[in-house]
Amino acid sequence: MFSQNTLLIFFAIFFLHVSTITFASDPDPVQDFCIPHQKLLGSMNASHHHGIPSILPCKNSSETTATDFVFSGTKAAGNFSEDGIAVISASLANFPGLNTLGMSFARADIEVGGINPPHFHPRATELVHVVEGKVYIGFVDSSNRVFARVLEQGEVMVLPRGLVHFMMNVGDKIVTIFGSFNSQNPGMQKIPSAVFGSGIDEELLQKAFGLDSKQIGSMRRKFDPNSK
Amino acid sequence: MFSQNTLLIFFAIFFLHVSTITFASDPDPVQDFCIPHQKLLGSMNASHHHGIPSILPCKNSSETTATDFVFSGTKAAGNFSEDGIAVISASLANFPGLNTLGMSFARADIEVGGINPPHFHPRATELVHVVEGKVYIGFVDSSNRVFARVLEQGEVMVLPRGLVHFMMNVGDKIVTIFGSFNSQNPGMQKIPSAVFGSGIDEELLQKAFGLDSKQIGSMRRKFDPNSK
Amino acid sequence: MFSQNTLLIFFAIFFLHVSTITFASDPDPVQDFCIPHQKLLGSMNASHHHGIPSILPCKNSSETTATDFVFSGTKAAGNFSEDGIAVISASLANFPGLNTLGMSFARADIEVGGINPPHFHPRATELVHVVEGKVYIGFVDSSNRVFARVLEQGEVMVLPRGLVHFMMNVGDKIVTIFGSFNSQNPGMQKIPSAVFGSGIDEELLQKAFGLDSKQIGSMRRKFDPNSK
Amino acid sequence: MFSQNTLLIFFAIFFLHVSTITFASDPDPVQDFCIPHQKLLGSMNASHHHGIPSILPCKNSSETTATDFVFSGTKAAGNFSEDGIAVISASLANFPGLNTLGMSFARADIEVGGINPPHFHPRATELVHVVEGKVYIGFVDSSNRVFARVLEQGEVMVLPRGLVHFMMNVGDKIVTIFGSFNSQNPGMQKIPSAVFGSGIDEELLQKAFGLDSKQIGSMRRKFDPNSK
Amino acid sequence: MFSQNTLLIFFAIFFLHVSTITFASDPDPVQDFCIPHQKLLGSMNASHHHGIPSILPCKNSSETTATDFVFSGTKAAGNFSEDGIAVISASLANFPGLNTLGMSFARADIEVGGINPPHFHPRATELVHVVEGKVYIGFVDSSNRVFARVLEQGEVMVLPRGLVHFMMNVGDKIVTIFGSFNSQNPGMQKIPSAVFGSGIDEELLQKAFGLDSKQIGSMRRKFDPNSK
Amino acid sequence: MFSQNTLLIFFAIFFLHVSTITFASDPDPVQDFCIPHQKLLGSMNASHHHGIPSILPCKNSSETTATDFVFSGTKAAGNFSEDGIAVISASLANFPGLNTLGMSFARADIEVGGINPPHFHPRATELVHVVEGKVYIGFVDSSNRVFARVLEQGEVMVLPRGLVHFMMNVGDKIVTIFGSFNSQNPGMQKIPSAVFGSGIDEELLQKAFGLDSKQIGSMRRKFDPNSK
Repeated sequence: MFSQNTLLIFFAIFFLHVSTITFASDPDPVQDFCIPHQKLLGSMNASHHHGIPSILPCKNSSETTATDFVFSGTKAAGNFSEDGIAVISASLANFPGLNTLGMSFARADIEVGGINPPHFHPRATELVHVVEGKVYIGFVDSSNRVFARVLEQGEVMVLPRGLVHFMMNVGDKIVTIFGSFNSQNPGMQKIPSAVFGSGIDEELLQKAFGLDSKQIGSMRRKFDPNSK
Repeated sequence: MFSQNTLLIFFAIFFLHVSTITFASDPDPVQDFCIPHQKLLGSMNASHHHGIPSILPCKNSSETTATDFVFSGTKAAGNFSEDGIAVISASLANFPGLNTLGMSFARADIEVGGINPPHFHPRATELVHVVEGKVYIGFVDSSNRVFARVLEQGEVMVLPRGLVHFMMNVGDKIVTIFGSFNSQNPGMQKIPSAVFGSGIDEELLQKAFGLDSKQIGSMRRKFDPNSK
Repeated sequence: MFSQNTLLIFFAIFFLHVSTITFASDPDPVQDFCIPHQKLLGSMNASHHHGIPSILPCKNSSETTATDFVFSGTKAAGNFSEDGIAVISASLANFPGLNTLGMSFARADIEVGGINPPHFHPRATELVHVVEGKVYIGFVDSSNRVFARVLEQGEVMVLPRGLVHFMMNVGDKIVTIFGSFNSQNPGMQKIPSAVFGSGIDEELLQKAFGLDSKQIGSMRRKFDPNSK
Repeated sequence: MFSQNTLLIFFAIFFLHVSTITFASDPDPVQDFCIPHQKLLGSMNASHHHGIPSILPCKNSSETTATDFVFSGTKAAGNFSEDGIAVISASLANFPGLNTLGMSFARADIEVGGINPPHFHPRATELVHVVEGKVYIGFVDSSNRVFARVLEQGEVMVLPRGLVHFMMNVGDKIVTIFGSFNSQNPGMQKIPSAVFGSGIDEELLQKAFGLDSKQIGSMRRKFDPNSK
Repeated sequence: MFSQNTLLIFFAIFFLHVSTITFASDPDPVQDFCIPHQKLLGSMNASHHHGIPSILPCKNSSETTATDFVFSGTKAAGNFSEDGIAVISASLANFPGLNTLGMSFARADIEVGGINPPHFHPRATELVHVVEGKVYIGFVDSSNRVFARVLEQGEVMVLPRGLVHFMMNVGDKIVTIFGSFNSQNPGMQKIPSAVFGSGIDEELLQKAFGLDSKQIGSMRRKFDPNSK
Repeated sequence: MFSQNTLLIFFAIFFLHVSTITFASDPDPVQDFCIPHQKLLGSMNASHHHGIPSILPCKNSSETTATDFVFSGTKAAGNFSEDGIAVISASLANFPGLNTLGMSFARADIEVGGINPPHFHPRATELVHVVEGKVYIGFVDSSNRVFARVLEQGEVMVLPRGLVHFMMNVGDKIVTIFGSFNSQNPGMQKIPSAVFGSGIDEELLQKAFGLDSKQIGSMRRKFDPNSK
């Protein structure tokens, strides 16, 4: 017979090689909760599955503890990018307790003048709670109308599912926001890099944006990590 | 190569040790049905997973029979508890045919004067069909209003999802009811034991119910199986 | 200003003439419950909307009573059809309390030798609980395989969503079954009348069933109420 | 013809008298957003519908502004109750912009030693973000096991849908938490008042909690607003 | 340790013997996509699981290519049956890229005078797009009313979920239609074979259709592949 | 009393002024179908609600005909835009029969060299069926990887929900594609106009795309209809 460790190694290898078993949906749970087994999750992270959720064996409930339902990674700001924003996202990969519960969240800190560029989440509505600072937030609807406003500490804005939105710190100190989503994996497409940094055919981009080859080339160099 | 038995043993061990692979939802099925393989289910039960549903390999449809869709455990009453109630619940563990079909059910028999204490099902609406007897049934809505009535044989009451409800046999013979749910795993929280028998901090309970330490201690001894 | 009665009359007329406002789904409720206003429902019934659910104004919760959640129409058998079956279905039309709660039910009594002809429910799984008697029940899966068995008092069979099923009383006394559904309006298509009694092009039916014009004509006379 | 004002008055009266038109679910939106018309909503609030969402006519999108998607009521703490907690809930009634978007939220401030008594939300998972302070938070699962921990500023806990949970300020300054839900109307049942303050039959309560008539009477006086 | 090939063989055997792991629903995806691993899928097909979808390990996204999302099997007509119809259905078995995305489709070519016999899809609405030709299409509603019309090239008809529908080529050249479904596995029950070719009890069929033993026997010989 | 016409006028006015009553979801229908009343729909269109679906009173089923379920607007190409594409979308506004059925569709014709610029549908997966011609189609996933290929007549590509996708006619004749969606109102955000033509703060756009004020101004003049 196999020991538990052998089995875990077996499955760890399996998930490393064949990739993850994903599941289908964000609907009503059919059990109280399901915490994926940590060792398996560890191996999954190691193989760089960039946050794709998985159907993984749950821990025995006797091994589940309160800590499985708590995330501490949002106590402090993350590392700031060139845009002046630091995002810490809680997802299955770093917070397995979210599994099957239909929600996830992120903390973002934005430097004075920093931005969160136009992006959208394909699979969730977002609630933005301003924990600190003064931030211009808005979204674009299907008829290309912008709904934007400056929010202050304690205010909340709701960003409808799948619509392009954006933020800019318009105050004089760091902004901290807490965003929550009604999906355990809302997904994200940042417009500049999804469009100019992903390798869409150059002729198509020229025609779509009315830019010439040189201009598109310049945009690509900015946003395509491979062309750098 | 491995024989089928070796594989089943392998998976049985796997599920025993690593716990179950649960799935996410109670929505539309994407196949006619999916009967989990009996041997795996057997091992799952053996490890006391208290009815948590699992994503288990389905039987080949050629091995599926009509019996997989029939439950006979509700032909007679179960064992009566101290409250004077005998509940037989059909769930994945004892009726695998329910898997993915979005429904489950229970038979409850209540002795004269017996009760079904205040409880609720986190994941389902319940239809209560009175097969025999005379029973007081009610539920509490979000504004703490009680909707209760005495039902007779053949009558049906609908108990909205997630709301506290309760029953008492107010007739002069045993009551038999058949409850059906729109989830394959509705879940259940019985108020007395969930609140006083689960180990919630004593000071918090004192403040919540306005009881002193001695009174809370007495409630705990009644409902916490570990304190007995 | 208008009195409440004038408003009710207004809406009653509106619903009588323009037909019902239907709603979109059988998913999670977003409130405890919503009992449609009785007077409006009354007028709706009067105009023969054959059970189609409606988005109707809810009663004030102060006017809602426990009786709104209780159905008494299943205390006794209904009227038997030529097939030897008497069905009483609870739907929004006769049990408004089901509104938004995602379940409905029916009582069927079948005479000795009587049948429930092949039919299916487009929008629900069905749980059949045998309250009394001995009944042959079965369903057909997508690969045209029959799963059928004789059930006795107290047994339960689950019939997967959307699949053709059927029943026959094979005992020596009346059968009583209680069927519950995971939709407030499961729908129903009885094969003989949906196919032969609905007016499908005759040539198409001849080709589909390999029957000649005379045979199809005979089937139509049996099942089309208009051709009688 | 009628002026717009006449129509609004008409509908305001209608909603006041006949109660609200509720809708069925918290699923995927089928449009970008739908802001209910303010005047109608105002009349709805006036008639004390305690937060029940409604299918109301949406504003023309040309009348919709960014402000419709922003909630400012959470900038400061609310009024503290006897339990030492001040809750401000955003719902359709005070934040119409949430309509059809599948999320809602609340700010709670808890005094030193104050509690949020055992309660649950029938229709949502909750994410609790600790904005300030030190708070003991926990929930009870279906097998009556408590998962509880002390959280500090910046930490997040996820409370699975429909399960009883509770909080207590165990630090030395006011706690501020921000809770978000994956339903626009999660509902709430506070155990002490739902069970002892709602009017459940006294004999049933005595049997359920093993308390005598006097003890139950004392609990009722504490939690039933009508018995005071 | 095991090589990847050994693991694949292991899983291939597992799926061959124990049958497939199915999943529960057709709801919102929780990741961009999930392409099942080809080798496993191959073994699944080999064991004749007639299109039942499975929870299979996804390919690493680095191994996923554009081709995984493209289906070329609908470039030409399939093989014509006795009814004069040739159907090519894209499902998980032959187009793994559909996995978790909530849609599937089929191409059907119908000879002059050929038919698509009365059938229904238990789990999907169908959009029929007439690519070429002239075709009579219709469906039957729950009150046995037929909604049928002749469609020409470029027209589209919507067939509501779960309702019986049918087609006949009434033009003078081959009809080509493209049907799309809002489920990755809509299922299908063809009435003649589901009812007369599946082995439903003969006495029940006689009573249901008012046919004698000889007539039912004749129908069975036509539609039951085993009786031929 | 009011005549039916008065009532229709009343409601037409109501919908013109107060805007539409929208509904919440794209889930399982709870009735066979629901065709909104044509006159009301007409007035709705007149007030330019750009395709927002509405909860409107359904026609009496006796007034419903087969034609309500047929769309003929896709028999020929529409008008070509500057991008060389002609799109005809079927939605509730021009095809009321789709109401509550969870699907919609569009025909697009693309001139030689013409493009369908990068865009996405917030609420649906899309199936693209190439009816004629040779077309480069692709989408971008959450990690900014492009999945693109040239498709020929008869081929089908699936575009996962909410992800940016694009097309270009790379053949030597007009391309005709038929796109179907698993939502009755998938929504659409065309990147160039949603980002540069919607009025997002100029400074934010400069920072997001690394463009200077002049370049952003030039983009805005191209895509903002108001700046022309």
